[in-house]
Amino acid sequence: MMSFEVTTRYIDEIQQLIADGNNEAILKLLEEVHYADIAEIIEDLTVEEGIYLIKLLDSDVTADVITELDEDTREKILGGLSSKEIAEEISELDTDDAADIISELTDQQQEEVISHIEDEEHAKDIRDLLRYDENSAGGLMAKELIKVNENWNVLTCVKEMRAQAEEVSRVHSIYVVDDNDLLKGRLSLKDLLTTSTRTAIKDVFIKKVDFVHVDDKAEDVARIMQKYDLEAIPVVDKAGRLVGRITIDDIIDVIKDEAEKDYQMAAGISQDVEADDTIWELTRARLPWLILALFGGFVSVSILGGFSNAMTKYPSLFFFTPLIAAMAGNVGVQSSAIILQGLANDSLKGSWWKRLIKEISLSLLNGLVLAALLMSAGMYFLGFDIKVGLTVAVSLVSVIIIASIIGTFVPIILDKRGIDPALATGPFITTSNDIFGILIYFWIAKIILGF
Amino acid sequence: MMSFEVTTRYIDEIQQLIADGNNEAILKLLEEVHYADIAEIIEDLTVEEGIYLIKLLDSDVTADVITELDEDTREKILGGLSSKEIAEEISELDTDDAADIISELTDQQQEEVISHIEDEEHAKDIRDLLRYDENSAGGLMAKELIKVNENWNVLTCVKEMRAQAEEVSRVHSIYVVDDNDLLKGRLSLKDLLTTSTRTAIKDVFIKKVDFVHVDDKAEDVARIMQKYDLEAIPVVDKAGRLVGRITIDDIIDVIKDEAEKDYQMAAGISQDVEADDTIWELTRARLPWLILALFGGFVSVSILGGFSNAMTKYPSLFFFTPLIAAMAGNVGVQSSAIILQGLANDSLKGSWWKRLIKEISLSLLNGLVLAALLMSAGMYFLGFDIKVGLTVAVSLVSVIIIASIIGTFVPIILDKRGIDPALATGPFITTSNDIFGILIYFWIAKIILGF
Repeated sequence: MMSFEVTTRYIDEIQQLIADGNNEAILKLLEEVHYADIAEIIEDLTVEEGIYLIKLLDSDVTADVITELDEDTREKILGGLSSKEIAEEISELDTDDAADIISELTDQQQEEVISHIEDEEHAKDIRDLLRYDENSAGGLMAKELIKVNENWNVLTCVKEMRAQAEEVSRVHSIYVVDDNDLLKGRLSLKDLLTTSTRTAIKDVFIKKVDFVHVDDKAEDVARIMQKYDLEAIPVVDKAGRLVGRITIDDIIDVIKDEAEKDYQMAAGISQDVEADDTIWELTRARLPWLILALFGGFVSVSILGGFSNAMTKYPSLFFFTPLIAAMAGNVGVQSSAIILQGLANDSLKGSWWKRLIKEISLSLLNGLVLAALLMSAGMYFLGFDIKVGLTVAVSLVSVIIIASIIGTFVPIILDKRGIDPALATGPFITTSNDIFGILIYFWIAKIILGF
Repeated sequence: MMSFEVTTRYIDEIQQLIADGNNEAILKLLEEVHYADIAEIIEDLTVEEGIYLIKLLDSDVTADVITELDEDTREKILGGLSSKEIAEEISELDTDDAADIISELTDQQQEEVISHIEDEEHAKDIRDLLRYDENSAGGLMAKELIKVNENWNVLTCVKEMRAQAEEVSRVHSIYVVDDNDLLKGRLSLKDLLTTSTRTAIKDVFIKKVDFVHVDDKAEDVARIMQKYDLEAIPVVDKAGRLVGRITIDDIIDVIKDEAEKDYQMAAGISQDVEADDTIWELTRARLPWLILALFGGFVSVSILGGFSNAMTKYPSLFFFTPLIAAMAGNVGVQSSAIILQGLANDSLKGSWWKRLIKEISLSLLNGLVLAALLMSAGMYFLGFDIKVGLTVAVSLVSVIIIASIIGTFVPIILDKRGIDPALATGPFITTSNDIFGILIYFWIAKIILGF
């Protein structure tokens, strides 16, 4: 394993060198360091020191460093560079990374930066990419790709490829187009290596080629590339013209972002925050869900208040409300998590009825086991009377069934209506299940105990 | 976007054709269908029908189909094939996929299947891979790779590569070794395309090459490949000999599995289950966490029971227990989720003290906002008396602070001790925070109200 690690001593050393203005030593120290590691170093420096490094190092390194930075840090670092300096960095990047970074700038700065890019083709490509939604295939794709005309022969093709390969960092596939730039197929490197140079491309290329449209959703592109084990996929416009390609490393980011988003939603965090964000950012992400939970809590307070006449006769009923609420919440979260993953993997099969019956059977089974445990262990250790015990046990089973039905079907319904089903996990489900749980519990208590 | 979709009608048609034994029509129907789609079709058929298809179709397709199946389905399908038939499928696969499938068989069957593989080299490679832990670099890697000797020239290299490329489905990198098979560097395809054929490999290869050791953990390999944007990474043994390579598609599976595992842990699901698993499997995954929550509930019942003397004077105190418990649970889950992601991304910086102070400030801020809301909205709508309101408000702030400290530091401590910090999310945190929350609430009530 490569053992580069950013140690405190290392950071101290760099800070000292920057303070001394010892550029030669800095350049020597960072000469062999990977851009991803330099980005990590910059995260540990002050903004001024970071800007100093970016200005000092060669832009073919720093361009990559800038793409690797956290968005917050990048914003600050770019804030210390002129539009011309930013343009120099951008010029070193592939169009997709360039467009991603430029899209984070203000509209006015975007124009300024692009106008400073010397390579007009590159500037045009970037401008083109900025038009697409960042969550679409167009927003993910890069303009850099290797394409050959079906009317060429292998020799021309290899010559052209060499020229094109200068611009393309990784050759995944060679795409074949006709005279109108319409995507016709692909060519494998292997075939190129093993075919005579005078063979016409027409005769060797593979006609079956997977592709996506510029407007396809990023998550659909991710699903397809994973399902079909693709390392790159060409992107066509509405007319079928080849306009770009998406590589698997961009898809990894989509997959990770999706997973993080779902995870944060389930935990009641509404924005993409990290432990090291400011208190203000963290509060904005967390407080809304807590307010939701607080108002949910108000509802349960009033429900309990409404049943206060039961308190004199059956005080112990009230001791069980947190238990009932917790069980409802846990069951709901479990059910919603399982359904959400099924929706994400597109693996939910069978009818609603079947799912309902299964969910009821499952929660009946779990509920009965838990109720038995409650009756035996609970009555033995806690010594409450049999009527209250029975009430709690019956409620527990009912609450578990209802909670699992809510947890299962709310996400499904949201998904059908085009709303992100991840909303219906975490605090939303626990809060509503708390309320339903307590309500059901006291209704059943009222029926059984008759207060 | 490719529009292949497995419809009910399509499945019906295939089932009818299988029932009729109309092999010709089946072959024609599935001729152009991707193996990943055939796998999806088989998931919708009965096991017998699936086995029928696997036996009917060509093994260069079905081998890939088998790798794409769900583990459960695969087990059933392979159960219907003889060891010799399984060996035929396995022979078509790359060593890493082959080893993955064989590792799912019983020890005895493993030996039988491997002994039926005709290509002895392939059999030896698979046997070799089976020795590694599936969560290590060795467990992820494939033996198929393109390697050239540093002492060759470009011409020999291209010739050898052509021979090797037959076996390697995707050429990512060409690895350079010395006479002892020690990894020396890599060669880019681009350089090969643009260098004279008589140049010595020694003079053109890139000496800097990232690699991992066979025993490195899968998640570390994933982290490195992502950080350094690698599409493939060579694997060396203890002596530094090149023994395999890992490609990015295997890493995607690692990333997804990690994310799913964390998500399921946070939701209180202890095994990798899906919505369509059996009730028994789902119960095994869910019930243990619910039992944990139930026993947590018992604790809160006894705590509340211990404060029952407060009931006559301050009955409304008991109406707030679900609210306090819910807030404690939600805050704890938020904090633990943020820390868990920080631990996963290795992005937690700064000292414990700083983190503690930050967590306290953050929860104090959130707590005060929520307490203010509670006092104003709560007293207005719910009309409880000022002393109880103040008690609840003070408790709320305290409970939120304690809950966020527990949520933050329990995962950190677990992680330091080498225990999976994901354990300390979801039900574990909500249950313990319920208990602490209620305890703190009644202690504070006792101090303020003096019952």
